[in-house]
Amino acid sequence: MSEDGADDQSGENGIAPTPEPPYYAVIFTSQRTDGDAGYSAMAERMVELARGMPGFLGIESVRGADGFGITVSYWRSEAEIGAWRDHAEHRVAQECGRSTWYRDYSVRVARVERTRESAGRASR
Amino acid sequence: MSEDGADDQSGENGIAPTPEPPYYAVIFTSQRTDGDAGYSAMAERMVELARGMPGFLGIESVRGADGFGITVSYWRSEAEIGAWRDHAEHRVAQECGRSTWYRDYSVRVARVERTRESAGRASR
Repeated sequence: MSEDGADDQSGENGIAPTPEPPYYAVIFTSQRTDGDAGYSAMAERMVELARGMPGFLGIESVRGADGFGITVSYWRSEAEIGAWRDHAEHRVAQECGRSTWYRDYSVRVARVERTRESAGRASR
Repeated sequence: MSEDGADDQSGENGIAPTPEPPYYAVIFTSQRTDGDAGYSAMAERMVELARGMPGFLGIESVRGADGFGITVSYWRSEAEIGAWRDHAEHRVAQECGRSTWYRDYSVRVARVERTRESAGRASR
């Protein structure tokens, strides 16, 4: 995800099962403005779109009652993150994010190098 | 952060100002068990401890009403992440996390390679 993200409301919560590293993470941190203004519907649509993109591995997302949220999406490669960033419908959402939905945001692209999980998840 | 994290309650919310990449992120995703059982106090203490560790750059944390949370802490180097992971008091917290506070968790260590921010943050 970049200028969008699934919130508590979208039912996307949970730890994403991801493959052995290396793979990539897009860490999207944002502070929402007040009011929905079409945000929830668009966020849900963006998750749906992202899931259909080549190289999509998973997504984790939480937003607190104060409007601060973190969405981390996982991808197979940087090139596939670029394709998602440039998707036409995603571009529109990014523009609305900048103009309307987010007071502040940060996008960090990172290469996941090591992972560790609770025992119940070890076999995934 | 690893087996711990500041929640909404700790007042640690907000986008962390971080330096130019490269630097490292520890993405800690978790599902809390029910009840506090000493968790809030320990989470707050861990953030305080982490802030005092060499190489600590910042932290972002959210937990939803359903107990699912994401904490991302940022570090200058992998070695400094290792020193934090091995800190004696942090080790105790990790053990309590495994035995009591978390139903499920995942730790991912990633190298931040590129960043992008909203206009108001561009100069940081």
